[in-house]
Amino acid sequence: MTYQSLTPDLLVAFEAIVGPAHVLTAQRAEVAATADAYHAYGHDHTEDLHFAPDAVLRPGTAAEVSQIMRLCHEGHVPVTARGAGTGLSGGALPIHKGVVLSMERFNKIIDIDERNLQATVEPGVITEAFQNAVKEKGLFYPPDPASKGSCFLGGNLSQSSGGPKAVKYGTTKDYVLNLQVVLPNGEIIWTGANTLKNATGYNLTQLMVGSEGTLGIITRVVFRLLPYPQQNILMLVPFRQEAQAAEAVSAVFRAGIIPSGMEFMEREAIAWSSDYLKIPLTLPDDITAHLLIELDGQDLDQLYKEAEQVYAVLESYDVGDILLADNATQKDELWRIRRNIGNAVRYNSVYKEEDTVVPRAELPTLLRGVKEIGRRYGFKSVCYGHAGDGNLHVNIIRGELSDEQWNVDLRRPISEIFELCVKLGGTISGEHGIGLVQKGYIGIALPDANLNLMRGIKQVFDPHSILNPGKIF
Amino acid sequence: MTYQSLTPDLLVAFEAIVGPAHVLTAQRAEVAATADAYHAYGHDHTEDLHFAPDAVLRPGTAAEVSQIMRLCHEGHVPVTARGAGTGLSGGALPIHKGVVLSMERFNKIIDIDERNLQATVEPGVITEAFQNAVKEKGLFYPPDPASKGSCFLGGNLSQSSGGPKAVKYGTTKDYVLNLQVVLPNGEIIWTGANTLKNATGYNLTQLMVGSEGTLGIITRVVFRLLPYPQQNILMLVPFRQEAQAAEAVSAVFRAGIIPSGMEFMEREAIAWSSDYLKIPLTLPDDITAHLLIELDGQDLDQLYKEAEQVYAVLESYDVGDILLADNATQKDELWRIRRNIGNAVRYNSVYKEEDTVVPRAELPTLLRGVKEIGRRYGFKSVCYGHAGDGNLHVNIIRGELSDEQWNVDLRRPISEIFELCVKLGGTISGEHGIGLVQKGYIGIALPDANLNLMRGIKQVFDPHSILNPGKIF
Repeated sequence: MTYQSLTPDLLVAFEAIVGPAHVLTAQRAEVAATADAYHAYGHDHTEDLHFAPDAVLRPGTAAEVSQIMRLCHEGHVPVTARGAGTGLSGGALPIHKGVVLSMERFNKIIDIDERNLQATVEPGVITEAFQNAVKEKGLFYPPDPASKGSCFLGGNLSQSSGGPKAVKYGTTKDYVLNLQVVLPNGEIIWTGANTLKNATGYNLTQLMVGSEGTLGIITRVVFRLLPYPQQNILMLVPFRQEAQAAEAVSAVFRAGIIPSGMEFMEREAIAWSSDYLKIPLTLPDDITAHLLIELDGQDLDQLYKEAEQVYAVLESYDVGDILLADNATQKDELWRIRRNIGNAVRYNSVYKEEDTVVPRAELPTLLRGVKEIGRRYGFKSVCYGHAGDGNLHVNIIRGELSDEQWNVDLRRPISEIFELCVKLGGTISGEHGIGLVQKGYIGIALPDANLNLMRGIKQVFDPHSILNPGKIF
Repeated sequence: MTYQSLTPDLLVAFEAIVGPAHVLTAQRAEVAATADAYHAYGHDHTEDLHFAPDAVLRPGTAAEVSQIMRLCHEGHVPVTARGAGTGLSGGALPIHKGVVLSMERFNKIIDIDERNLQATVEPGVITEAFQNAVKEKGLFYPPDPASKGSCFLGGNLSQSSGGPKAVKYGTTKDYVLNLQVVLPNGEIIWTGANTLKNATGYNLTQLMVGSEGTLGIITRVVFRLLPYPQQNILMLVPFRQEAQAAEAVSAVFRAGIIPSGMEFMEREAIAWSSDYLKIPLTLPDDITAHLLIELDGQDLDQLYKEAEQVYAVLESYDVGDILLADNATQKDELWRIRRNIGNAVRYNSVYKEEDTVVPRAELPTLLRGVKEIGRRYGFKSVCYGHAGDGNLHVNIIRGELSDEQWNVDLRRPISEIFELCVKLGGTISGEHGIGLVQKGYIGIALPDANLNLMRGIKQVFDPHSILNPGKIF
């Protein structure tokens, strides 16, 4: 596919559409403050990658997006949509230059429909801001990626984001009812209906979710909501054997309990994060891993009953003293430790994060495999993640590895980790997406027949292949 | 699209693939018993429609399906997959003749994985048989269409079936993790991974669900399961005003309760069904509608607390004596009454069933609209359905309508009903699919831009358009 650069005529047209204040280019980035702003659009939270676009556009309405898309479609200009830039697979990087379409001005909550337990929002709303807004009405939007304080709902949709509560409540995909989408040719469609059930034609809504900005630009979303669970209990369970922590996860489910969070943290993950946050935490020498288990519901007595059942399950394992967080501050600290592991690892070392996922009972096997591969190839990893749904974030630490070891040699062991995931019934990304950095590994998860279907679908939506080119496959 | 008839050579080839005992044709149907069997494959539960195929094939393995598909793909022979034939939109009818691919021999539960709360099954397993098999292990497969005693899981997947428990637990689509699919060209793929989270390329799994056999043939399924809820409470709530029954539905959710069933039945729906089943039920004259409300969970005390909250909500409405079913027999009778409304209506009169769906709080408006349209056009309707998720089955009763009124004139008021659904944020099918009988109305729900995307996707999967031709669009 060959792409066109931006012509001066196109820039003038873009300015007419979104207004000159919302067109940023390299030329205008000569003023220092603007330069920072402009350059920020060329990278995200994925390692240390940077790709400068030809221009950044900040449209404010679906009609503006439609006009931009029509011009880019006709002109064969690449368009990379961008949320808050917190992605971990390079999905928002404009690797073929062209236009970055920043959705930051789509920041309105249009309607919270208390009668139907639904909300209509724009994709540039910050996930946590949306959660807080619906919580004020007694409602609950469960998906909560670690970056919820800064990431956008649109990015969550594009990457099919999850978070700790996915184990009980599902991921972003399970809450979207309907999407307004601008297609590459400028047409504006709604993908479905505002209903819990829909058997009317192909499921275009779920096709859009997780398509990483390669099929269309999401400009409005209808989410379903739940009644807010008013009560919760949080416990931190230390294990003397990592594998037992992973095994206990399945045992809790078999006891009939569905926790609202079931997080696994290796010793170093929790140690690094509590140090990073300067939250004191005593870690006895013999503790190698923790589970952070949350139960939620409307009735505290009921939750204590469930907690007793969890304790009963844990008696079969070699656990240390269980910390039952009994106030909001303590709960908040524990969750902050969990959420900041990624930041703490980044603070300690250059690292690569692999978003492995397997059926939850296979987690001990995956964990053992990752460590064994690390020993064989001479790298260290810090592992943590959403054990309840088998989603283990493997952080490979750079340490003393040379450039060649880091950039080239590591491909082989990463492939081995992914091959192990697939062998165990899993796949190579649970919630971060494929984007740019996992693209080289997609063949491990998906054979040509699957990839050809996906390429065919891409062609149907985007015949000139202008949307986020070079991603996924 | 022009299709080829079956040649004698193809029939010989099919016999070599599946064995002569599993090839039925019109010629062989001359023997009376076989004729009945053969003709049964030409209709389903949709009105009184019958389309004879050229041949019925009953393959037993994915490899056999693959060989059949390759021949039909090369020969441009239509292939219509068929489950148990309980569909209500004509999805299994071979309207362009060719081959009916009956999946009845795919009737094995391959594995119930208690460690991962998953099961691998073939698509010809009867839904209730699967529910019972997992229940024996303390596990729960929630989707429960009214025909669960005879329908196949594969049909449920093709039509995105729901049932009463969808309000709390979602529909078939929410339980499928991974599908083995034979593509029209004979390739066999798995659409996803056996994991709760997956952000690895486009969601082919959800694209298959609800595609009504137009994209590929499902030959194996991995479902996720839940711990079985050991307790439940069932209450039948009579209302003096239909609209209040519909309004109370939203109010229960706003109180923080998510019932596992929330069924709406007009007076005549429940009266006809209890008569049909010969289950005595006292219906005071002033009662116009009922809600059947089920709560489920692991703890009976907790359910009684929730039931008290439901009673408190209902105090705001003009309800009669609430029947709290307190034993298994009574619960079973109430559910049988609910499940047999369709059969009772069929027993009483020729009818057309429309599978309307709207956001749940719009149900009173939809119900009023349906009745108003009926008065204006001179037809009677019996309405019932899954009020918790806004899915109202509108049964239009033939009564004294002439052939022309029934077959032609009715199209206008049905269109008006569907237009009302869409105006209220809903769509024209919640769980029955579009198939043949709703195809003429698809434009009411989906504009050309959507339909063109769907046609494009169809072309990618099935370039010769051999799979279930003439359905959906």
